[in-house]
Amino acid sequence: MQYPKSIERLCSLLHKLPGVGRRTSERYAFDLLLHWSEKERLDLQRALTELSGVGFCQTCGSISEGACSFCQNPARRQDQLCIVASPKEVFTLEQTREYSGLYHVLKGLLSPLDGRGEEALGLESLFARIKTQDVKEIILALDSSLEGDATCLFLKEELKVFPVSVSRLAFGIPVGSSLEYVDGGTLARALSARSSY
Amino acid sequence: MQYPKSIERLCSLLHKLPGVGRRTSERYAFDLLLHWSEKERLDLQRALTELSGVGFCQTCGSISEGACSFCQNPARRQDQLCIVASPKEVFTLEQTREYSGLYHVLKGLLSPLDGRGEEALGLESLFARIKTQDVKEIILALDSSLEGDATCLFLKEELKVFPVSVSRLAFGIPVGSSLEYVDGGTLARALSARSSY
Repeated sequence: MQYPKSIERLCSLLHKLPGVGRRTSERYAFDLLLHWSEKERLDLQRALTELSGVGFCQTCGSISEGACSFCQNPARRQDQLCIVASPKEVFTLEQTREYSGLYHVLKGLLSPLDGRGEEALGLESLFARIKTQDVKEIILALDSSLEGDATCLFLKEELKVFPVSVSRLAFGIPVGSSLEYVDGGTLARALSARSSY
Repeated sequence: MQYPKSIERLCSLLHKLPGVGRRTSERYAFDLLLHWSEKERLDLQRALTELSGVGFCQTCGSISEGACSFCQNPARRQDQLCIVASPKEVFTLEQTREYSGLYHVLKGLLSPLDGRGEEALGLESLFARIKTQDVKEIILALDSSLEGDATCLFLKEELKVFPVSVSRLAFGIPVGSSLEYVDGGTLARALSARSSY
């Protein structure tokens, strides 16, 4: 027996959220129907409308409400650029409170399998920034995935023409982890990058 | 560093969905912001609006668009009532194609810890139906949880004054399961309810 059409429609939309399978979408839809008040549902609709008003900084690509809180902040180091793949990761890095330079959000990662070549990265604006802002250091803060690795390698080559030092986030065992559960690849990297103690 | 207010608001709303923690709500919010088109977000808003139009059958409490597809269906056995705790479970049972009687959705389950006593079940309408519809069999299809068990026991007592046979869904090992992963309580119930083979 099929769910009513209105519930079906909601399910297939919620199914588009990352990691949400068919079952979970049904669970969400029925929760919204049975346990959310009319007011809460209206609030959610309003919050969705508000998303359209979220702006992105033309320079660095991070989320900004009005003036960019990074690019327009003179207290931040202007000669350091941290390259990330998504505006969300800017917040993740900010939460460490360990970085005080600027950011640059790529338009995507290289993924030959999905047909995303170098034009998908949107590098022109990065190169322009490096030249005009007199950038001295670039930190690649990309995923440790096939796409992330490929993009890092590609950027390392492309950035050779600029007088900048390029680094990538360190690999190693996660803080607080038990060696028993660390995979071999990570352990090998942690071993070769060991530091005197 | 805090997310912009519009994203914070959306996160705290999505956080209300069942099983969605703070991290997952952030993942959903950023997916909605970065990867959903304006049109998809509008579709979702519309689907949420449509939920307000979903109706419930006054008699059995299941979801109905216009006439109830159960109560108003003469092909279904009128003397059999399956008692469930939520309109969603009606669909779950229908998918088995093993039941052709009517349903009765309780308003909730007994939960003394949450202050939900017998008045929370909404039993008046159930009792009225049993009398007027000449119900002969009642099947308790409630969770195997503290609340479900308590409600089943309570209903069993309350229904003694009516000339109906009361049964509860069978306990046993799930179909396709390996004994190794079946918990002791389930195995004990499966053992005591074993059938000749």
